[in-house]
Order: sequence, then C-alpha cells, then structure tokens
Amino acid sequence: MVPANPPALDLTADSVAITQAICDIPSVSGDEAALAHAVVAALSDAAHLELVRDGDTVVARTNLGRERRVVIAGHLDTVPVNRNLPTRYETIDGERYLWGRGTVDMKAGVAVQLKLAAELVAPVYDITWMWYDHEEVSAELNGLGRLARHRPDLFAGDFAILGEPSNSRVEGGCNGNLRVELRAYGVRSHSARSWVGENAIHKLAPALERLAAYEAETIEVDGLAYREGLNAVGVTGGIAGNVIPDEAMLHVNYRFAPNRTVADAIEIVRDLFPEYELTVVDEAEGARPGLDAEFAQRFVQAVGGPARPKYGWTDVARFSAMGIPAVNFGPGDPLKAHADDERVATDQILSCERALRAWLTGVV
Amino acid sequence: MVPANPPALDLTADSVAITQAICDIPSVSGDEAALAHAVVAALSDAAHLELVRDGDTVVARTNLGRERRVVIAGHLDTVPVNRNLPTRYETIDGERYLWGRGTVDMKAGVAVQLKLAAELVAPVYDITWMWYDHEEVSAELNGLGRLARHRPDLFAGDFAILGEPSNSRVEGGCNGNLRVELRAYGVRSHSARSWVGENAIHKLAPALERLAAYEAETIEVDGLAYREGLNAVGVTGGIAGNVIPDEAMLHVNYRFAPNRTVADAIEIVRDLFPEYELTVVDEAEGARPGLDAEFAQRFVQAVGGPARPKYGWTDVARFSAMGIPAVNFGPGDPLKAHADDERVATDQILSCERALRAWLTGVV
Repeated sequence: MVPANPPALDLTADSVAITQAICDIPSVSGDEAALAHAVVAALSDAAHLELVRDGDTVVARTNLGRERRVVIAGHLDTVPVNRNLPTRYETIDGERYLWGRGTVDMKAGVAVQLKLAAELVAPVYDITWMWYDHEEVSAELNGLGRLARHRPDLFAGDFAILGEPSNSRVEGGCNGNLRVELRAYGVRSHSARSWVGENAIHKLAPALERLAAYEAETIEVDGLAYREGLNAVGVTGGIAGNVIPDEAMLHVNYRFAPNRTVADAIEIVRDLFPEYELTVVDEAEGARPGLDAEFAQRFVQAVGGPARPKYGWTDVARFSAMGIPAVNFGPGDPLKAHADDERVATDQILSCERALRAWLTGVV
Repeated sequence: MVPANPPALDLTADSVAITQAICDIPSVSGDEAALAHAVVAALSDAAHLELVRDGDTVVARTNLGRERRVVIAGHLDTVPVNRNLPTRYETIDGERYLWGRGTVDMKAGVAVQLKLAAELVAPVYDITWMWYDHEEVSAELNGLGRLARHRPDLFAGDFAILGEPSNSRVEGGCNGNLRVELRAYGVRSHSARSWVGENAIHKLAPALERLAAYEAETIEVDGLAYREGLNAVGVTGGIAGNVIPDEAMLHVNYRFAPNRTVADAIEIVRDLFPEYELTVVDEAEGARPGLDAEFAQRFVQAVGGPARPKYGWTDVARFSAMGIPAVNFGPGDPLKAHADDERVATDQILSCERALRAWLTGVV
C-alpha cells in the first residue's frame, strides 16, 4: 500500500498552500501511508530534527537541551471523503476559504505544524512534533495511543498543544463522555389482551420526561466554563405489531465537565434513573484545561487569549491523563468538522502560524 | 407437493382421536396440501355433501332445502412447529390434555367439525362446512378471503360459527385493530454540543406519558363487554452514540371495541397525539357479536351461554363484513394458542362436539 514515489511536499510554500497540498493527498483513517511518507520525505533533510516512525505516525523532535519541551501534535487522517475533494478556493462574504475534506479537521493545523517544524531550527523550547493516524475511528486504533504504548519516552514534555480546529484560539481541556443503556422490563403478552402483560416501552416514560426536563449544568473548571449535556441518543423496543413488549432500552449520553470523573458521572446518571437497569457502554475521562499552570498561562497570553472551553472529547485528554497540561489550538471552525461543506478561512491558517511561530521563537 | 397417497383419516373415530390424527399431519401455513387431501379423501364417499376445492381450502355443503343455512368454518394451518409434534397425552391436575402444535389453534375445532360433517346426514339446518388455508399468515393469503373472491355464492348463510379456540364457549364478534406510527422530529447535532440540536427522542416523552396513564375503556356492544387496549408495540430512534437524533418513531396499537369503525379509531388516536406525525400502517374493522339476532340467541342458549366477547381479531370479522352474524366456538384455551406448550383438554373437544351436535340435530 506504500506508494513507490510519495507525493512531494514543499514546506517552503505558505501554510495555506501546504494545507491544500496535504488535503489533496486523501488520507481517510486506515489509508494514511501516502501522507505519512510525504511527511517523512519532506523533513528527512532537516538536520535539526530526529525522526521516528511508528506505523503511519511520524515524530520529529528537536534536541537542543532547552529547559522546557513542548509536544505539538495533529492527526493525519480524515473522515471519509464525500465528493469534497479535490480542494478549491471559495470566497463567501468577502472571506477567503479553502474548501474540502480535511481542511478543518485538521490538515490546516497539520500544515502549520509541518511548516514550523521545517523552519524553526532554534526554537526557545525543545519541540516534539507528532503527526498520527487513526484519530477519527475507534479509540483502540488511535495512533497516539499506540505510540504511547510503544514509545512512552517520546511523551516527555511540559505542555502539549493539539492542532484540533478551534478557530485559532486556545480551547482548553475537554468534557468527559459517558454512554449508558437504561433498560425497563415488563411482561410479554398478545396486544389483544394487553392487560395480561406489562408494557416495557411505557415504562420509559419517566426517563424521557426527566431527560426532556433536564437542565444541563455549566461548570467552571480552572477558569473555563464547561457546558454539560445529557441526552437520549437511541431508543429501541418492540417485538411485533401484536405483542406487548417485555423489554425496552434507552441509550443515554452524558457529556460531563472535567471536574467530574467517569465514576462521578455514572453516579449522577444512576441517581437520576434509579428504577432502570443501567449498563455502561462507553466512558472517557474529561481533561481539565490545565490553564492554571504558569507555562500554559504564558502560552494563552502569547497567542492572544482568553482561552475557551472545548466541548468535544479530543486527544488532549490523553496528555491530561499523562499529567501534561494540554490545549487545543488550530485553525478552522469546529462546527464545520466532518461537514460536507467543510472549509477553513485562509486567514485563520495564517494567524495560527504567526501566533505559534511568535511563541516558539520567543518574540512574544 | 401433493402426496400420492394422502394419509387416511378415519372420521368414525372419536373427535379426540381425530384431533390427534390431524395434528400429526403437520400443516404449517403454506403446507396444508396433505391435510386438505386427507379431508377430501375422508369425505368423498359422503353422499349428503357437495365438495368444492379451492387451493387447499375444502368446502362441504348439504343441500337439503332447509329454511336456514349455517356456515361452520375452521382453518387447517398452524403456526410453525417448535419441537411440539408429534402430539402426546398429558394429565395435569387430573385433567387429560392432548399436547402439541395445533391442538388448540385449531385442529380440535376442525376435528369436531369433520366428524359432524361426516355423520350429520340430516341436520335441521343446511350446513356449509369450510376448512381453509393460510389463516396464520398475512391477510392477503387467507384462504377464506380467496374463497370469497372466487366463490362468493358459497358464503350464503344466516349465521356463521368459527371453530377458533374459546374454551368451548361462545365468544362473539371481535375487537378492531389499528396500528399507527407516530413520529417526532428535531434537529440533528453532535452530542458534545447538544444545545445546538433538538432531541427528537425526548419529544416522545408526552406520548409515552399519555400511553402509560391511558385507561382503556370497556364498551358493551350487543350485550357483550369489549375491553379495549392502547399500547406502544415498538419504539425506534437514534443515529449514533454521539449524535442528537432528529427523528424518533413510536409504533402504537389500538384494539378498539366493535361499536367503533377504523375511521373512529384513527380519529381517537389522532386526537390523543395531536403533535405527532401519524401514519396508519395496519387497520382491521372489528365485528359486532351479532348476538342480538334471534337465530344467534338460540345458538347461544343451545350450546350453553352466556356468550363472552372475543378480544383478538378473527375471521368472524369477514362474515360480519358480509352481513352474516358470526361467533367463535371451539375447544381450547386461547391463551395456549401459539404457545410451545399448546395443549387442549380432551373434555373440551367432546363437550364442543356434543353441543354442536345437539344444536344441529334439533335436540336442544
């Protein structure tokens, strides 16, 4: 699957052009090899970088003996293409956009990182750049997770920046994520004699009432306000059109602020739905923004604060779990991630590059 | 598929033995040919009967010039066998049962009818016996419906008796049946930002509350009390574990008393759930018991009243729709129909035979 001649990538081009070039190398999850090869080829002559390859994950690090080390990471893969490649430029209301799959999530961020990796031969902090595979699919395939198992030493660092789309502003931490199945049971019977049975679907009424009436909290953590969400994301029940069902299931998703643990979240959901059988089907700890750390504060000031909370779960939680403060910082509106009209404002790509360059070179 | 030598059926045996014999000729819907052949063969020498065959439906009628004609019908097919054939005898709490698929629904009733068809050469009413195929499957396959299209003339009659299990007591008419799908719509969004969307599953809460709180009516029709039922029989919704769903569906079944029409029933359901999109997916008119007719009254008295209502939909509704009063009268507990431990009390077979024989011969 490895191309004999990986597409050539010119990192002396501006970061918008690099974004376009790497978007036009399709790299849907599982198919990142061509892009990973192109990255290695483009950086192989950079004497200031030590290159490490693990599967389709590429690590490039400086070893300048600086007092601090920063990890800066981005994923190479995208969700499936849906007639939105190759990229093209569009101007909407006077704003210039690069349109197409991956422009937002997150090749614009990767392009900025690649350009800075090639050019910053003497940053004020040592930098570990990481570009990884399989972010958009099942967590056990995640390239960053695999790298952490194979080479935990590469994760040494004082601070981490993930280039996930955040409109080129700092978004700290992320909410945790819990999914549970709530089950109600009844007694099956023929629907012509429904009074002989006990309808399990009807028993979901109180749970749905509570969900519909639920007012999700907004919780401040390390100075950022995290908005929670508690929602049914699925419901199933029923055997046949003439049968009173004896089982019904409500699938509930709780996005919880990072001051809570998964265990806290399970307790909250259990207390809210005490009469149902509860099965946890998915769980992920949130990540505190870590912006109380002095180093993080300086980054926020340098790139132009204030920081905002990140709602969706991102790989910052991996760094957070390893004790490394981590934030999201990348071009693109997260609401356009995965959208068929995915597009990034070219100005955001350039402002992200300027901000990161200034901070990494000590100008600010 | 027609056997060269249909199994021989001895209609001089007692009706319990005949029940066993015809249960042991498996005749799951679509596979009634062998049994239909056996029926024709067993009655072919009966000079008092005119035989008509339509597919696997067999009609046998007397033409004695009587003032009244009675239609007596039963279906030959069963639901699938589930390791409950061949039949065997069981004694439970001193009661003797014939156990196995079809014993209740409804070969005991058919056995009684076959025996009386063979033996009653001079009944006080002319009789049209009908044994038909495909009752347990989709309505458009129903052998009685097909016969009504091919030979409507055979349905002439003053009264009809269906041998469906009713514990050898008269059960009149049947409830109507309506199934609708109620749909709620919302706005899809990522569940990490649920406030951007609008949860369609949550919108089912009021419908489920109303169903859970609904007190079904009991309505007297022609002297019989019909108990209604309104129930969710299915619910679906949800796209993925991280998506706020924009559509959810509740499948509702309304079993309504035969004083109402399907149109009435639709209006009732529409009024109860005005905020949902409503799609009718199945409808069947009920059947008034017709027990106000003088002829029907005499039948009830003759076989030992009082009559009771039938809750489930049966083919009596076909006769009712043709203007022929019709009742269910057959051995077996309807709660054991389709059950894996389907079994009929042998005393009920004999008492059903005695009652029908007495009425048809003018003894009572």
